[in-house]
Amino acid sequence: MSNAKQTMRVGIIGGGLMGREAASAFGRWFVLDNFPVQAELIAVCDLQEKLLDWFRQVPTVRLLTKDHHELLRSREVDVVYVAVPHNLHEKMYLDVLNAGKELLAEKPFGIDLQAARNIRNAAVKSGRFVRCSSEFPFLPGGQRVIQAAQSGQFGRILEIRCGFWHSSDLDPNKPVNWKRQTKTCGEIGVMGDLGMHVVHVPFRLGWKPLRVYAQLQKIYTQRPDGKGGIAPCDTWDNAMLHTEALINGEEVPMRLEMKRLAPGETNTWFIEVLGTDGGARFSTKEPKTLWLFERGQEQVWQRIDLGYQMIFPTITGGVFEPGFPDCFLQMWAAYGAERAGQLGNRFGCVTPDEAVLSHELFAAALESHAKKNIAVVGSG
Amino acid sequence: MSNAKQTMRVGIIGGGLMGREAASAFGRWFVLDNFPVQAELIAVCDLQEKLLDWFRQVPTVRLLTKDHHELLRSREVDVVYVAVPHNLHEKMYLDVLNAGKELLAEKPFGIDLQAARNIRNAAVKSGRFVRCSSEFPFLPGGQRVIQAAQSGQFGRILEIRCGFWHSSDLDPNKPVNWKRQTKTCGEIGVMGDLGMHVVHVPFRLGWKPLRVYAQLQKIYTQRPDGKGGIAPCDTWDNAMLHTEALINGEEVPMRLEMKRLAPGETNTWFIEVLGTDGGARFSTKEPKTLWLFERGQEQVWQRIDLGYQMIFPTITGGVFEPGFPDCFLQMWAAYGAERAGQLGNRFGCVTPDEAVLSHELFAAALESHAKKNIAVVGSG
Amino acid sequence: MSNAKQTMRVGIIGGGLMGREAASAFGRWFVLDNFPVQAELIAVCDLQEKLLDWFRQVPTVRLLTKDHHELLRSREVDVVYVAVPHNLHEKMYLDVLNAGKELLAEKPFGIDLQAARNIRNAAVKSGRFVRCSSEFPFLPGGQRVIQAAQSGQFGRILEIRCGFWHSSDLDPNKPVNWKRQTKTCGEIGVMGDLGMHVVHVPFRLGWKPLRVYAQLQKIYTQRPDGKGGIAPCDTWDNAMLHTEALINGEEVPMRLEMKRLAPGETNTWFIEVLGTDGGARFSTKEPKTLWLFERGQEQVWQRIDLGYQMIFPTITGGVFEPGFPDCFLQMWAAYGAERAGQLGNRFGCVTPDEAVLSHELFAAALESHAKKNIAVVGSG
Amino acid sequence: MSNAKQTMRVGIIGGGLMGREAASAFGRWFVLDNFPVQAELIAVCDLQEKLLDWFRQVPTVRLLTKDHHELLRSREVDVVYVAVPHNLHEKMYLDVLNAGKELLAEKPFGIDLQAARNIRNAAVKSGRFVRCSSEFPFLPGGQRVIQAAQSGQFGRILEIRCGFWHSSDLDPNKPVNWKRQTKTCGEIGVMGDLGMHVVHVPFRLGWKPLRVYAQLQKIYTQRPDGKGGIAPCDTWDNAMLHTEALINGEEVPMRLEMKRLAPGETNTWFIEVLGTDGGARFSTKEPKTLWLFERGQEQVWQRIDLGYQMIFPTITGGVFEPGFPDCFLQMWAAYGAERAGQLGNRFGCVTPDEAVLSHELFAAALESHAKKNIAVVGSG
Repeated sequence: MSNAKQTMRVGIIGGGLMGREAASAFGRWFVLDNFPVQAELIAVCDLQEKLLDWFRQVPTVRLLTKDHHELLRSREVDVVYVAVPHNLHEKMYLDVLNAGKELLAEKPFGIDLQAARNIRNAAVKSGRFVRCSSEFPFLPGGQRVIQAAQSGQFGRILEIRCGFWHSSDLDPNKPVNWKRQTKTCGEIGVMGDLGMHVVHVPFRLGWKPLRVYAQLQKIYTQRPDGKGGIAPCDTWDNAMLHTEALINGEEVPMRLEMKRLAPGETNTWFIEVLGTDGGARFSTKEPKTLWLFERGQEQVWQRIDLGYQMIFPTITGGVFEPGFPDCFLQMWAAYGAERAGQLGNRFGCVTPDEAVLSHELFAAALESHAKKNIAVVGSG
Repeated sequence: MSNAKQTMRVGIIGGGLMGREAASAFGRWFVLDNFPVQAELIAVCDLQEKLLDWFRQVPTVRLLTKDHHELLRSREVDVVYVAVPHNLHEKMYLDVLNAGKELLAEKPFGIDLQAARNIRNAAVKSGRFVRCSSEFPFLPGGQRVIQAAQSGQFGRILEIRCGFWHSSDLDPNKPVNWKRQTKTCGEIGVMGDLGMHVVHVPFRLGWKPLRVYAQLQKIYTQRPDGKGGIAPCDTWDNAMLHTEALINGEEVPMRLEMKRLAPGETNTWFIEVLGTDGGARFSTKEPKTLWLFERGQEQVWQRIDLGYQMIFPTITGGVFEPGFPDCFLQMWAAYGAERAGQLGNRFGCVTPDEAVLSHELFAAALESHAKKNIAVVGSG
Repeated sequence: MSNAKQTMRVGIIGGGLMGREAASAFGRWFVLDNFPVQAELIAVCDLQEKLLDWFRQVPTVRLLTKDHHELLRSREVDVVYVAVPHNLHEKMYLDVLNAGKELLAEKPFGIDLQAARNIRNAAVKSGRFVRCSSEFPFLPGGQRVIQAAQSGQFGRILEIRCGFWHSSDLDPNKPVNWKRQTKTCGEIGVMGDLGMHVVHVPFRLGWKPLRVYAQLQKIYTQRPDGKGGIAPCDTWDNAMLHTEALINGEEVPMRLEMKRLAPGETNTWFIEVLGTDGGARFSTKEPKTLWLFERGQEQVWQRIDLGYQMIFPTITGGVFEPGFPDCFLQMWAAYGAERAGQLGNRFGCVTPDEAVLSHELFAAALESHAKKNIAVVGSG
Repeated sequence: MSNAKQTMRVGIIGGGLMGREAASAFGRWFVLDNFPVQAELIAVCDLQEKLLDWFRQVPTVRLLTKDHHELLRSREVDVVYVAVPHNLHEKMYLDVLNAGKELLAEKPFGIDLQAARNIRNAAVKSGRFVRCSSEFPFLPGGQRVIQAAQSGQFGRILEIRCGFWHSSDLDPNKPVNWKRQTKTCGEIGVMGDLGMHVVHVPFRLGWKPLRVYAQLQKIYTQRPDGKGGIAPCDTWDNAMLHTEALINGEEVPMRLEMKRLAPGETNTWFIEVLGTDGGARFSTKEPKTLWLFERGQEQVWQRIDLGYQMIFPTITGGVFEPGFPDCFLQMWAAYGAERAGQLGNRFGCVTPDEAVLSHELFAAALESHAKKNIAVVGSG
């Protein structure tokens, strides 16, 4: 490990929800036990004065600017976290790379497949360490499913189901925002918004979709614009992608669901893997519960209480409940550890290749829907 | 109502599991409250002496025979219930109709689409009352989902999921039987075995699949033959049919699942309907529980305890648990009531047209799988 | 086995809900596989003409009378099932015994402890086979808990919880009935109505309460009388009995709950046993689900799907759902088998001694409540 | 509000699990939205060099000492958080008060009732702001139960159940620690360890136990001492306190459970309130789920997904999952806000009077167990 990588001085472009969550993570970075990398939030860029103001409370922040080029010029910044609308991804990510910085890119890693490929290629060319965001697999339940899948205890895999479900958009009076419009969210709509969360684990386990049948839905076509008027919504609200993955020479049905209109579901991220001998289930709906299937003399689903068993241990006791800020911190720890060559066989953030594959899938899904066919993934 | 229909004298062809369940139902037919039809089991045909012997205990049975023609010649028999392997359906059902009897046919109503159409056409021509079996929708939970769907309280329907899951075949040492071989079960495999249970409710609600993408799986290709040897298994074990139904002018994703290899699931029949304003869920996994979704100020799923609220009330108290024998009895009550013109707006058994539609769907599923396409239902 | 016991000709005194359920059970008695006892319903006594009329549909019934002495004089009747209000138990049960008949007595086996002792003593003196009713332990889930408890796999037992919960009385507009008034239901109120269901399994497992702290509640003190007026309700609605049982030399907390006012609970009968090494849980709220605890490297609760695994197998397939009529039939099969000396090590109906012990517990509970003390069970 | 209270400079005595959790909370204090109080961790005292070392990473810490008097002399420290074994509470808390500092005291607020009273009296006399710890009620689910209870929507309250369950001690090979020995944990054992968590909400809602029947259990009497030997365990492992609370003039059964030996339960904190018209349930076993009972035409339990709805909003999005570090932060925010006179009608930390009442309850529980009686709370 180069000594330089033991320190990670972070700049943020985009001071919204996720930008501030990052500030929170770096504010308590010291809770990571024996962690090899020091990290600090140094600089923040946003166009809104009010958001910049918020960061004035963060003791370590030295540069606040509305000009992302100014941030990128700072010699103090090693790593840039970019959390901006999808239509700005490609330009911003390339600017970061061109400035010689390393990157944690917010999903979906470009507004479409072409953008994703451009970014990936630039990343490769730059030699910089680039990863894409996805927090939920870092929860203990996600990790236990991964471990079980890797152990081989499932026998022949019968089926895989992953998804991410939201419900707040069911309220027709919820005002529009940039994620509900194609020009800013992308033609892939909800797949761009939620899809990376869904594919991260299966892709990492080597389960890559060969082909896809996509059921895409636009349900609400307009919403209040938040200013007394009405604005159009032209993105996909729900997407169900019925795919097959090749696992040990067999095609296995793999369903990937991304929904903004899932009745009653608040941030439900789930993964379920079923095999002839074993299986596993985890959902953030019951974030403390792991289900493991065992086919013995009887077929049983074991319910196990989870605690705070994190990839990167912190000072929080093992019986306690992890929350979103905790898995966000873990994602950053994985980024920092991998960047420093210290990840080992632990689970890491989404790679550029995985991000491109996700866009290949989403592009195929658009084709499947448009042509009412089974689209081959990666042919586009 | 013709007076004649107030009596239903039943003959059974096939004295296996379902034949004896029918004997049980007629043995306590008097528990139906104020029911307009009297029913009695009169005659039984089976090729196995041992099974015929069993029926000697049933006081009302007067004719036991190995020759189904003898049973069909009996003047005392009004209605014939045929529960034999799928490859015998067409011939037996036509024999029943040709003998001028009325018919409750075990699913799948013929081994394939052509058989189903032949039977349907013969039924129409004969003018006899013909229905096909399906018990689980008669459970209180199934009925509540139907009522909720019909009330319009769901708003725009977002998605429909129905299925029937078994798991005993996960045991590789379970011996083969006729349902695991194409020659007796049919090329449609698990769809023939479990499919009618899955489509009964959606078809009755008018939700008919326009097209289908089928994920069909053969997992176990051989099993013990029960005699010390090994026998091939060549039927589909699992089928997931991804369809769209046209509801109020909108295409709605409807997933229909039939699985013999669903880890840990013992006879799990379920239906779930989700809409923008409401939804409903029922599964025999929790047979006493109804879930209703309501989108109010908050989005809530209501959990309601069910009791013995049957379409056709019996003497059993309303707080008690219904079981399979009870919904089997209700299915027969529905058959008898409809035959007598007394069904009213209550839920009835599967019609011949619905049975043919199910076969159109299964045929399209086979095509979809073979050609890796989206098959149009009813084009075959 | 005396030959005579292979036949059980039954008379019913009390043609209400349970009387008719018995007719249903005997109507399909032949579904019991290879069962050693033949049974028939022969005679029925009730004061209401309308109820007697109902029994005219039951083919085997030969005697219908309003005079229970007439029924008891019938030479054709071997066994009498008495299902009448609690205040009539003692007299009726003694009449049955004095007539030389055998008895299945509806719980609570007399209106109070003295009545129970009188009946028990008369039963002993008569030498007749006498048992008391309790259906729910015959469900497969109840039986699995019993088996697990007897296996010793629980290690040291930590705690026991049993209960029976109803909720329909939460509706203040539900009219009064005889179970809501002390003169007919008894001073023990809800304990008399629901208590036998709760104690049957723990008593049979040898878990007998040493002492009790009782939390008894009267919530609704009046109700509509069903005739436009208001009637007083003076019975206990809810009872929680906190007891200790001596198990392997250790006192173990055992909670016994009987509630008519359990929000949202429809006929929830449950039992839970927790130990240092294992545990088990079953509830009719999820009648198809068994939970088993195992302390291995991790602590897991195993969820297992139950089917139709009955003590006395019937023709119904093993994957299907049992309901109340099925466990009622099993109770009668247990009665018949034990009477014929054929029970073996299977679970049997409540014995007179167990019924007396239940009344000792209920009497101690009344004392505990009245004196605000910990009452010793059996000291009364 | 005095200006001085807008800043909270914190010193910690006891740098173990909770001390470091506090460092984590203050490290990201800025995530609290528009919060009126600034807070900083300034000083830490612990006897172990290794623990002090850990705090060197926390940028704001200026004083590290093994002598708590040195910390208490520091002019920079406003508030002291003491997290030490129970036998040291009284002395340490009094030292803090005598030094003129304000106090957040770890539960149980002294090793026994006398200690608690001494501390409470000293607190009153000092005029300093003193509160005791309890984190879980600050979870959104806990708050929703409180709101529902305060709204009056429950009608007449039927029953209250609160508890805190752990299971790691079921492993007989888990080494002993100071919480398993009376000399350091106190004679009240598990009640001292877990009891404050259980009583905080009911006490705040005004539900105070009149009397108690205690079922106390010692199951494991020795454990590995962690050094190759065996050490005695002489504390109560499990405690069930059956109490009555006076609510609107009616005595209501209230069960308070504290268990170290609850099979399969990892940090399960729960509260359930049942009434004739409504009810509510929350458990950290399903930390994202709120259950609300409504008695309408049907009796329904509503399941509601919770997000990050905190008393003191932070920058984390409302749909995300809160974890233990988040409710720990909320507890400190409540302490700081109340200290600054800014709590309003929000939920606050445990008061000294509530802490004393908890000890009165625990003392009565010991009496009840010893004398096998119903002990009056507060008579000791």
